[in-house]
Order: sequence, then structure tokens, then C-alpha cells
Amino acid sequence: MEDLFNPSSVALVGVRGEQLSVGFNALLNLVHHSYQGRIYPVTPRHEELLGMPCYPDLASLPEVPDLVMILVNHRRAVDVLEACGSMGIKNAVIVAGGYKEYGEGRELEVRIKGICQKYGIRLVGPNTLGFANVKGGVWPFFWHMKTKPGSVALLSQSGGVGLTVAHLLYEEGVGLSKWIGVGNRTVLEFADYMEYLVTDHETRTVGLFVEGTEDGRRFFQASRRLAAVKPVAVYKVGEAEEVDRAAQTHTGSLAGSKSVYSGAFRQAGVVEASSPRELAIALKSLDMLPLPGGNRLCLLTFTAGPSIVAMDKLLSLGWKIPSLSDGAREEIYRIIGEKTPVDIDNPVDMTGPGFLPEVYAPVARLLLKEPFDAYLFFWGFNPNVRIPVEELLILKGDTKKPVVMVLLGVGSREVEEERERLQERGIPVFFTPEDGARALGFLLARRRLMEVRGWLT
Amino acid sequence: MEDLFNPSSVALVGVRGEQLSVGFNALLNLVHHSYQGRIYPVTPRHEELLGMPCYPDLASLPEVPDLVMILVNHRRAVDVLEACGSMGIKNAVIVAGGYKEYGEGRELEVRIKGICQKYGIRLVGPNTLGFANVKGGVWPFFWHMKTKPGSVALLSQSGGVGLTVAHLLYEEGVGLSKWIGVGNRTVLEFADYMEYLVTDHETRTVGLFVEGTEDGRRFFQASRRLAAVKPVAVYKVGEAEEVDRAAQTHTGSLAGSKSVYSGAFRQAGVVEASSPRELAIALKSLDMLPLPGGNRLCLLTFTAGPSIVAMDKLLSLGWKIPSLSDGAREEIYRIIGEKTPVDIDNPVDMTGPGFLPEVYAPVARLLLKEPFDAYLFFWGFNPNVRIPVEELLILKGDTKKPVVMVLLGVGSREVEEERERLQERGIPVFFTPEDGARALGFLLARRRLMEVRGWLT
Repeated sequence: MEDLFNPSSVALVGVRGEQLSVGFNALLNLVHHSYQGRIYPVTPRHEELLGMPCYPDLASLPEVPDLVMILVNHRRAVDVLEACGSMGIKNAVIVAGGYKEYGEGRELEVRIKGICQKYGIRLVGPNTLGFANVKGGVWPFFWHMKTKPGSVALLSQSGGVGLTVAHLLYEEGVGLSKWIGVGNRTVLEFADYMEYLVTDHETRTVGLFVEGTEDGRRFFQASRRLAAVKPVAVYKVGEAEEVDRAAQTHTGSLAGSKSVYSGAFRQAGVVEASSPRELAIALKSLDMLPLPGGNRLCLLTFTAGPSIVAMDKLLSLGWKIPSLSDGAREEIYRIIGEKTPVDIDNPVDMTGPGFLPEVYAPVARLLLKEPFDAYLFFWGFNPNVRIPVEELLILKGDTKKPVVMVLLGVGSREVEEERERLQERGIPVFFTPEDGARALGFLLARRRLMEVRGWLT
Repeated sequence: MEDLFNPSSVALVGVRGEQLSVGFNALLNLVHHSYQGRIYPVTPRHEELLGMPCYPDLASLPEVPDLVMILVNHRRAVDVLEACGSMGIKNAVIVAGGYKEYGEGRELEVRIKGICQKYGIRLVGPNTLGFANVKGGVWPFFWHMKTKPGSVALLSQSGGVGLTVAHLLYEEGVGLSKWIGVGNRTVLEFADYMEYLVTDHETRTVGLFVEGTEDGRRFFQASRRLAAVKPVAVYKVGEAEEVDRAAQTHTGSLAGSKSVYSGAFRQAGVVEASSPRELAIALKSLDMLPLPGGNRLCLLTFTAGPSIVAMDKLLSLGWKIPSLSDGAREEIYRIIGEKTPVDIDNPVDMTGPGFLPEVYAPVARLLLKEPFDAYLFFWGFNPNVRIPVEELLILKGDTKKPVVMVLLGVGSREVEEERERLQERGIPVFFTPEDGARALGFLLARRRLMEVRGWLT
């Protein structure tokens, strides 16, 4: 698969000059994301595009390209694929839809499969936006996606949902290693990509959006192999029965019973999210945080309500919130001042004194030494009060335990710099208590699955 | 209550000059939000603050102020309140905490209640950030809140959660009429505020964050009276039993059984959210959209996956997604071109042709005339393709049915202007399929509650 994701040359068959065409956008994406290999636009309609010479057909190319992106309609794509095979081309993307998800296209898809088997072609799609090797700068991909290089690989059975999750991750400050629109999975299945990702050094964490798959056994075996070495999170659509029909007319796959899938995901060691946003939160959490040693959580705040909201979710996600030791309690009173009218326990609510960084930081230091397995820190944003970023980064340097930060009453626009500094050093930042709680929930879920599977060493 | 929310004069007792002090921030908020009445800083420590003369005590004021914000500690606040009463002051806010939520403070709170009863004082708090009459420009409020004037009133038993919801609403492009931190509710209870909001012309929609209340009967009677005339959405914390204890040490209230509350909310005609973000989505939906005539929903898209995700949620929320009429189907094929390899039904997935505004808009026009009760429109963002905002606004002008827009792979940063134009004209915009689905879910929930209560005329 290395040739597929890092080709030395890419040919685009059926590319056009119209700004709104699929082909032109694929060409733009390759150029704008600084593809370092050779690009061959293949079309008899143009002499050149974006300053590159065009070739009338595949046979005219000066070399056999590593990858061909096929941009013609669903009928012609089959013939182009046959031509690719006979030339010895081993990697292809078919963008067009209209195959097994569409009455008369079923037979065409059978032919596609036959051609790929005959020539040993690795085919992405059909019915896909393509893929983006974001880390490597290879974008055979015909739509717009705002992202940055990172270590999360995203496999999506839907372009729209995949783009939604990628954008949510971008807004959460999380980058991608690869984005793959698996489409109809006529040849390359989820399992193939997952097997590749087991050893892909660019990828630390894997996310899946799944409508359904026919080859359940292979799918779950590959999931399990991957989840044994890297965190895998999935969002599987299908709460409602009627969704099956819609999924079938989309990528031609049966959604299948949700509960059967959920059980199998657990067996495979894969954590499950229930919406695109939850999938983004799961991936952010699993990508940024170390696993906790157990389920004892400490919450630190100077505004109680959000910690209660988080606590409410955390308890149902399996976290325990043990009381503080008497020693810690006394020590905290000493720092915040005995006169403050507040009962100190866990969640540790310092009230007013807590919004002074010189109080917040020593209390955080003290708590990080107490026997907890993870920490959820809250901070209420006020433009006149400095967020104790420096202090938290110093403290974080002394501990291997997971720390999550929730900033309240603010968004990434206002605290982009602070968030980036915290996240670069492994403290994920969220803007609602429930997102912070969910992030910790997915982390504990991953730990427990690894425990049960015997994957913790 | 008019004097409380629109006072002609506000005295701030215990204000200080230190930039980080609670009192100084309250003073800044009044000034920065252009309070049009008279402001009296009351403190013996300063001669003047922000160019305003200070008064050493309440007795020195040139008039009896309409409202006093009491910024001193929890013990001294009781004496100041007594002084207010004896002067004939009828409205007060006590900011300090340390009362019924804190062992030795319980007796102080009993005294506060007695003083207010004796003098007929309407008291906000104690243990609160204060309140903000955002529409009227009156901010006796000591923290930072980014918001804009609008028609949603937010009552919150927690400052931090209330700020979180306010900021989520701000990011969703939704403004506030009033923000009220109810705190310990020693005198003014949820019920008092809700009774006032029944006839508050600035408020169209009401949101509540509730930890718990002791006077359940009155609370639910007031909720029901309010919900009969305005949409009310609540987020009640308390999924986990242990949360009770934490809520008690926060605002001294019992969280109580979640299921008891949920049943009572339904009885009262109040829709229920399960997180701060869901509350924001419920409020946005209920504030911007007309009620649907029934539960027949139509989805329009050119990228199927997100519509499947939304559909999955929508079906479990009570929406039906009926098939298209043969006539509509034929008409759509005529517009998008017969050759497009796609099965047209509901969700209407136009695939490729749909991203041309000149295809999208006429299909939308056609569907708006079909017998559906509400619409969920998807658009996949691409900076090179114009979102058909103009067209949708024209179509929206011809229908009274609710229309929700989901923009995929983008956020408000990139499409702020387009979003504002759509939202100003009553088409709420969301950035994930699940948020769009939830918005419609809350809308149908509201309609059904009104139906059952006999409130639909």
C-alpha cells in the first residue's frame, strides 16, 4: 500500500479545465498541497492545465504512473480501469458513484472487481472523494478539506461525514495523518486499510465512520489487530432500523443491527462514539492522552456547577471520584486561606481564591501528587485574568498521568494560543464540561478494553 | 420585578479599586455595557473610581437606589442587607457564597431570608455572579460574558454552567434578553423569575439550568404557566446518584431523582436537554423556528452520509421521513438530469449536480411545495462554490414551515456572514448533522407537548 499512499507519480484521467469540475479540483488539491511527485493530467480536451502539459490518454504518458485517479463517469471509468490494468498500473481511485448503490450500476461494479482481481489493482472507492495523505502531502482528493498534519487517520464510508469529523478535529486543534474515503469498498475494504495502518508510522490513532460492511468477520479481525497496537474509535450509524434502506442506496452496504456491531466493537477493543462530534472528541482524547493507571479521578475548579455536570457524566462512564485525604484538604485550606467559606473535597472547588493563578497552581501541584489516576481541571475564562498555562505545563512535565482542561465561557477564537501550547504538551482543552467528561470517558473505555483483552503490559 | 431588571440607579456596596476584585469588575460591567441610570460606588476606601465619586456608606447616597449589589463577604453582607431594608431599598443582589451550602453559613442564610421578608426585598442570590439585562444594558454582574442582545432568557443555578451555555449560544449566533444567576434562591426562586418572564416582552424563549429545588410544586406550576406561552427548555443535572452530594455543597439544593424531574418537566410542557450544548441547541431551535404542523420531514442534500446520520437521530426523535410522490421524483430527475446515476427519494440526494446552486435551488423550491411539515437542508462547504443563500432566503419567504440548514466541513469562522443572513431570516444553521437533527427533535418535542396540553390553538 506504500505506493498507493506515497506514489512517485499520479495521473488524473478525465481532468477538465472548468473551475467547478471534480477533476480540476483534484488537480488543484495535488498542487496546493505541494505534491512532490510527478503529476500527469490526462485529457484530450486541453493542451495544458495549470502550466502542466496534458496527455490525450494513458498510453501517451512518459512512464507508468504509480497511481491513477479516474475522474470520468461511472460507465467510462470501467474502461479506463481496464486500460490501467493492461498497462501494469497497480493503484487507482474511482470517484464516480452509480454502482452497487444504484440499480443498473450493480453489474458495472462486478466488472470493476473482476478487472482489479485480474491485474492486482488496489482500488480506492468507487463513489469517493478520494483520499488525502495529509502528513505526506499527497491529495488525490476532489473536494475542500481544512485540516493540518497530525497523527489521526480517518477512514470514512461517507465523504460528507468524513469531512465533518475532519473539520471538527481541525476546530479541536487536532491534525490528520491520512483521510480515506473508502466509498463502496469494492476492492480495498476497511480491513485492508486497517491492516496497513497497523505499521504506518505516521498514524498514532485511528477513527472510523461506518455505515455497514458485508465481510463482518474480516472487518472485526482487522479492527482487533489494529486496536491491539493503536487506539481505534468508531462511529457506526444505525440507531433506527429504517436507516438500513438509506445506507443501501448510499454506499450499497447493509447497516445491520447496531447492537450486533456494538458487541463486536467491544470484542475487538474498539471504543464507540455516537455522533460525528463524539468521534472527534474520542480521537482527540485517545491521540493526546496517556492511558490512566486506574479510574480514580480528581476535579479542580473555582466554579462548582461545571464540575457537577462533568461529574454526572463521569460517574456513568465508570470513573470514581474519591474523597481527598485529610492531609490534602488541610494543605489546600492553608493555600486558599482558612477563612474562605467552602467545604473542600473532590471535586475541589476553591471558589473565589481559585481564580488567582498563584493559588490555582500550588493546589494543582499538590493534587497531582495525591493518589489519583487522572485529572480534570476547570478554568473560567476572564480576559483580565491570566490562564495559568505556564504553571500547568511545568506541573505536567512532572507527571505521566492524564490531565484534561476545560475552559469555560470561551472558545478557541479567544484562547487559540493558550490552547495550542497546552495541547502541544499533551493537555487537551475542551470548552464544555460534557466534552471534557466524554474525553475522559473514552480514555477509560480504551484502558478497560485493553485490560480485558490482555493488551496491557 | 421591573425595578430589579431596569433600575434607575444602582449602588455597589464594597466595591474596590483592585482590577481583579469582584466589585471592580461589577462596576466595569455596568459602565462598559452602557448602563443609562445612576451608578453609586459605595466604599470608604476610595474617593472616586473610574471618575465616579464614591460614597462611604449607603446613608450618604443622594437618593434611595433602586438596586443594591452587595459585594462584601458573607458575614458583612447580612448587615448591609439589613441597612438596605431599613432605608427602603427593594432590590438587592448578594454575590458572596458561604451560606446554606456551607456548614456555619446556614444560620446566616436564615437571617437573610428574615430580613428580606421583613422589608419586602427582592433578592438575587446569594452565591451568584449577579444578573445581566442584556437587552436593556444593565449588568450588575461581576464576571466576563461574551454575548449579544437577543430574545433568549437564561436562568442558571450555576454561574459557570450559565456562562458556558451563554457562550455556546453566542457561538451559535444567538443572543440573550436576560442572564440570571439564581444562586441559592433564598428569596427569589426559579418560579419568581419565570412568572416575570411570562409577560417580559424582551423574552421569546427561556432556558434553565437546574441543579435542584425544594419547592417542586411551585417550580413546576410556574414552569407550566411559562411554557404555555413561551418555549422553555431545561437542562437538569443528575444522571448519577452521587451528584446530589456535590450539588448540595454547591447551591445547597437537593438534585433529586432525575426521572421524577423529567416526568414533571413533560407534564409542565418543558423540553429537556441532556447537556449544556444540547440546551444551547434547543434554545436556538425554539427561538428561531416556527412550530411544524406535523412530523413529516424532508431532507435535501448532495452528500448522502450526513443525511443518513441525521435521519438516524430524527427517526428516534419521532420524525417521519415519508417517500416522495412520483410527481416530485420525476420533476427532480428533470432538474438534475436523467443520466445522473442515483435513486431519488427522501432523503433527496442529488449527488454531484446538487452542488450547483442552479440545481439545488429549484429542487428546494419544488420540495417546499410538497406536503412536508419541515425541512433539513444540507450543504457541503467548498470555498469555490457559492452557498445558495439568496435563493434559500427567497424560498423561505414563501413558506411558514420550519427550515434548518446544516453546513458541512466548515465552521462559523468561514461562513459567518452567510450564517448571519440565514439566521436573521429564521433559518438556523448548524455544522454537524446531529445538531441539525437535535434542533428538529426539540421542535417536534415542543409541538407535541403543546398538543397534549391543549395549548395549540
